[in-house]
Amino acid sequence: MDDFIFGTLATDDLRLAHIKARRAGITHNHARTPRDPLPGQPVSLDLTVGPAHLCDQAWIYWTDDGSDPAGEGGVARRGFAAPMEQTGAEWDTLLWGYTRRFRATLPPQPAGTLIRYRIAAAPGVQTPRRNVSTPDDAGVSSATEIFADNGAYYAFYVADDPTPAWAQDAIVYQIFVDRFSLPPSVSSQWGEPEGGRGWTPSDFYGGTLSGITANLDYIASLGANVLWLTPIFPSPSHHGYDAADYFEIEPRLGTKADLRALLDAAHARGIRVLLDFAANHWSSGHATFQDAISNAYSQYREWYNFTRWPEAYESFFGVKSLPQINLRNPAARQHMLDAAACWLDFGVDGYRLDYAIGPTPDFWADFRRVTRQHNPECWTFGEVVEPSDRQLSFEGLLDGCLDFMLLEGFRQAFAFGRWDAHRFADYLDRHEAFFPPSFSRPSFLDNHDMNRFLWAAGGNISRLKLAALCQFTLSGPPVVYYGTEVGLSQERDVRQGTRGIPEESRLPMLWGEAQDTNLLDFYRRLAALRTTHPVLCRGDRRTLYTDDAVLVYVRSDGFSRPAAEAATTSVRSDDLSRLLVGLNLSDTPHTVDLPGAWSSPILATAPGCEFHPDGDHTTLNLPPLAGIVLQP
Amino acid sequence: MDDFIFGTLATDDLRLAHIKARRAGITHNHARTPRDPLPGQPVSLDLTVGPAHLCDQAWIYWTDDGSDPAGEGGVARRGFAAPMEQTGAEWDTLLWGYTRRFRATLPPQPAGTLIRYRIAAAPGVQTPRRNVSTPDDAGVSSATEIFADNGAYYAFYVADDPTPAWAQDAIVYQIFVDRFSLPPSVSSQWGEPEGGRGWTPSDFYGGTLSGITANLDYIASLGANVLWLTPIFPSPSHHGYDAADYFEIEPRLGTKADLRALLDAAHARGIRVLLDFAANHWSSGHATFQDAISNAYSQYREWYNFTRWPEAYESFFGVKSLPQINLRNPAARQHMLDAAACWLDFGVDGYRLDYAIGPTPDFWADFRRVTRQHNPECWTFGEVVEPSDRQLSFEGLLDGCLDFMLLEGFRQAFAFGRWDAHRFADYLDRHEAFFPPSFSRPSFLDNHDMNRFLWAAGGNISRLKLAALCQFTLSGPPVVYYGTEVGLSQERDVRQGTRGIPEESRLPMLWGEAQDTNLLDFYRRLAALRTTHPVLCRGDRRTLYTDDAVLVYVRSDGFSRPAAEAATTSVRSDDLSRLLVGLNLSDTPHTVDLPGAWSSPILATAPGCEFHPDGDHTTLNLPPLAGIVLQP
Repeated sequence: MDDFIFGTLATDDLRLAHIKARRAGITHNHARTPRDPLPGQPVSLDLTVGPAHLCDQAWIYWTDDGSDPAGEGGVARRGFAAPMEQTGAEWDTLLWGYTRRFRATLPPQPAGTLIRYRIAAAPGVQTPRRNVSTPDDAGVSSATEIFADNGAYYAFYVADDPTPAWAQDAIVYQIFVDRFSLPPSVSSQWGEPEGGRGWTPSDFYGGTLSGITANLDYIASLGANVLWLTPIFPSPSHHGYDAADYFEIEPRLGTKADLRALLDAAHARGIRVLLDFAANHWSSGHATFQDAISNAYSQYREWYNFTRWPEAYESFFGVKSLPQINLRNPAARQHMLDAAACWLDFGVDGYRLDYAIGPTPDFWADFRRVTRQHNPECWTFGEVVEPSDRQLSFEGLLDGCLDFMLLEGFRQAFAFGRWDAHRFADYLDRHEAFFPPSFSRPSFLDNHDMNRFLWAAGGNISRLKLAALCQFTLSGPPVVYYGTEVGLSQERDVRQGTRGIPEESRLPMLWGEAQDTNLLDFYRRLAALRTTHPVLCRGDRRTLYTDDAVLVYVRSDGFSRPAAEAATTSVRSDDLSRLLVGLNLSDTPHTVDLPGAWSSPILATAPGCEFHPDGDHTTLNLPPLAGIVLQP
Repeated sequence: MDDFIFGTLATDDLRLAHIKARRAGITHNHARTPRDPLPGQPVSLDLTVGPAHLCDQAWIYWTDDGSDPAGEGGVARRGFAAPMEQTGAEWDTLLWGYTRRFRATLPPQPAGTLIRYRIAAAPGVQTPRRNVSTPDDAGVSSATEIFADNGAYYAFYVADDPTPAWAQDAIVYQIFVDRFSLPPSVSSQWGEPEGGRGWTPSDFYGGTLSGITANLDYIASLGANVLWLTPIFPSPSHHGYDAADYFEIEPRLGTKADLRALLDAAHARGIRVLLDFAANHWSSGHATFQDAISNAYSQYREWYNFTRWPEAYESFFGVKSLPQINLRNPAARQHMLDAAACWLDFGVDGYRLDYAIGPTPDFWADFRRVTRQHNPECWTFGEVVEPSDRQLSFEGLLDGCLDFMLLEGFRQAFAFGRWDAHRFADYLDRHEAFFPPSFSRPSFLDNHDMNRFLWAAGGNISRLKLAALCQFTLSGPPVVYYGTEVGLSQERDVRQGTRGIPEESRLPMLWGEAQDTNLLDFYRRLAALRTTHPVLCRGDRRTLYTDDAVLVYVRSDGFSRPAAEAATTSVRSDDLSRLLVGLNLSDTPHTVDLPGAWSSPILATAPGCEFHPDGDHTTLNLPPLAGIVLQP
């Protein structure tokens, strides 16, 4: 875990505290079945009550008209209320006590319904508390009612709106806008800043939207069919995650006309465009915040969570310049939803949602409804730097989440060489078994918040190519962080930066002769492979062989189940939709003998990969850190 | 937890290590559904495989004829084998990885079948490991197969043989035989030992079986209908848990004729008799052990688990004088089963099973079959000093377990006053919700392995009476440790003993004027209450009222479900089978107002308990640490 990705769960102590807190509390934590209900499906909601919460009753309050549910003591003041049924108790050795379980089932709903709900539990209320000796403590009052998950509001949106089909075929190119390309009017990229002082990573390098538009042919030639642009709204920083106006474009980056031009040019090439959207926080320079802190009667004061006005308020990881937005305030929420709708109306194709665990859970149901209404084909996925169970809690709210757990596997196995092939294979099997296929999991090797993969791999291009081969032959839509495809690395570890921001992995794009054309060519062939073989985007995957050094898997349009039975099925040589991927993760050459006749080479990461089909089996020779794709 | 009951799980660190080990391993841990199958029911078996075990296949091996299953690589050599199906993966934040789940379902079986089984998992075997470069590592061999739970054998016995009905009505009197009564030929109890040196707790005090027989009228007058005798087999110690011959009686305690006389006299009074049976270990003086360590070719060598013959072997908590018996050895197992059968044939009515987690899990299925065959009405319950989930793993193997978790609640709430009434009420609700009603849970306030309750309560008789009132009005059959009913306590904490044995709680029975007759009378009325009101043994229980000080519950022949609905049902004054129990756990008087008219007093722990029925409610005044039982 010295890769510093899951900071909030980096140590045993942090993990234990996390688990204890969850089990000890009054916890719903998105326990919905199904999480993404179709019209007409009832939805069950579960609650657990830790040993120290002496609650023996629980209720759900909900509305079906978008309003906030309200009520107390199990009686609705707005919307509906229903008691939850106790479904048992479970012993918890860690907490040394029993957790209670409750369940309630909400009735089926028609398409387009947004159910917003809260859950509350109360102690000692099997009968009214009519203690004569302490008459003040009478009845079930809101004072004795405890709302689950610290009062969280939840919601779900009932619709038959699966992830758009194009998203599963996506090859995403992530562009850090300030660092990708100067506008076409500038003759040479990345000149020196004024005064000859040299660049620092937090400088404005000058990349623009028009610079991207000018390089769409490059992007198209790479094979990417989706762009993800880091934030383009007005912002005082080079990264833009502290925007001050979600309805405008940062002038340094361009104009709405520039974005229009980019969208039109991209769409003309079959390339879709995603924006980066931070719903949790924005800049303290935002006009509403400035008004909220300078005017005690500001209409915007409730847009923020002031703990002591005006100086103390909730903010992103305590950074004062990034106030957290109170999305439970209807006006603030509507403002945010309007912003999301506005750019979809403008023509963008979806959103990468920054820090998606930040906003109140019910916001994402509103977000889904609004975004789908404004663009039924939009693709939305979250940045959720949390384990898989937390990621999956976004099912039904977003189309999916960036696959941070697979990222960890990629880096452990391919960049650091800490996991051998067998361990990676096993992890991959379990990881894929955990998620339903409908949950979109864009895969990536690195991004702007961590060391670039090539840096983490000690500059070893073979490791990068092998990892990329794996990434492009798994079902998650691959994301390529700008420059990775041409060997862009960094000069020092991101943790050696001076401002706690991983700026080192945001060096400017390499152009012209600075590019590693061999690597670029390999990436182009990877993208072409994926485009040519839809089985890589949509097929099943099964590990065919693994040992400590080598992992071989097959992608296919369908394996019969159960797996044990499928394992004995030999590969049919006439099945051209099958692809075999062989990866040697070790630094020594390896030869393995595989079932099936695999006779057609498709792609290799390096010369020296050899295969010898012989009757019903194939011998495969792989040089160190090399991989190959074969067809029957 | 300074009561030192759950020593192996006494600290956070121990609990965490326990949980990590279970989740990290290849673990079945009695995960059977149902755990106590009826004839004709299929049985599902679950397996979890921790993140570090790279196993993607699992099998179950089983027999239906009592023999040991055998096989490898999923192929049976004796009995049957079947693959388990992968049923998913679960993220585990504590282990930071995925656990895999497997499941297999065994076919329905006729009554009287004993299914013995093992589960194994194997790594990387989706296809044969035909790695050409390392040909020695080929095929699925037993070397790569890992058996669940460190190789444990499991078994279950298919029968429709619920816990005998009389057990639910039992009032058990636990007699530590050496300390209860001298034989009737001795005129006065507990004279001084020879030499005038005074007693030490590990002396032989001289209690006998005939001494018990002589006092059966006392026991009958107490209202007990079951005796549990601590071990009576030949043994070098005062406690007998290190017996050397399971087919004889310790001469100090008496003869088979004395036991016959005791059984006859007890049965004539409607009192059943349970023996204490230690299947895990016996004395190093046992003839088979002496032969095993002195004769390298001993037929008994396999009756023990020698790690280095003859000096190193498995033993009870490492105590060399208590060698653990290898019950996987067929002859040793049969010897133990014969002993259990022999005393049932002799006339005893069941067993308290000492340290029931010690023997291999499959032994208890054999034990159940044999004991039920020799006495279909026998009652068996285990001493399992473990949390509730582990206790419940004995479902289907024994009739139940001594209720150690309720013991903890009794002592925390009533002896130490650490839990207030509300916390105890909540704990009780969850505890009862956790266990199926069919699982027998004898309740107790203390036993021979811990400080007596009265000592723990600082000698406060009110606390003891209140706890006993609660104990006798819950559904678990109450166990009274000899002397508790007459105020027997101790002179110092058990942990101040000199030999690591809690001898201090084994002082000799009080007789004659030494008895607290007020307390004895109270216990007699408690037993009469339970005998007169079967609803206390068999009825439902519902908390009617609780606050920090007072707990009130109702026992009834049946509450309508769900509980939320029942809570609004007023008590019908014409329902004489209902009993209300009110307990003031605080040291100040309290008045509470209760729904229903409760007009008939049945029993109170102290004077001063007042009740005032008034229309549809009743006002109840309880002095400090006092309790009352009322009828409508």
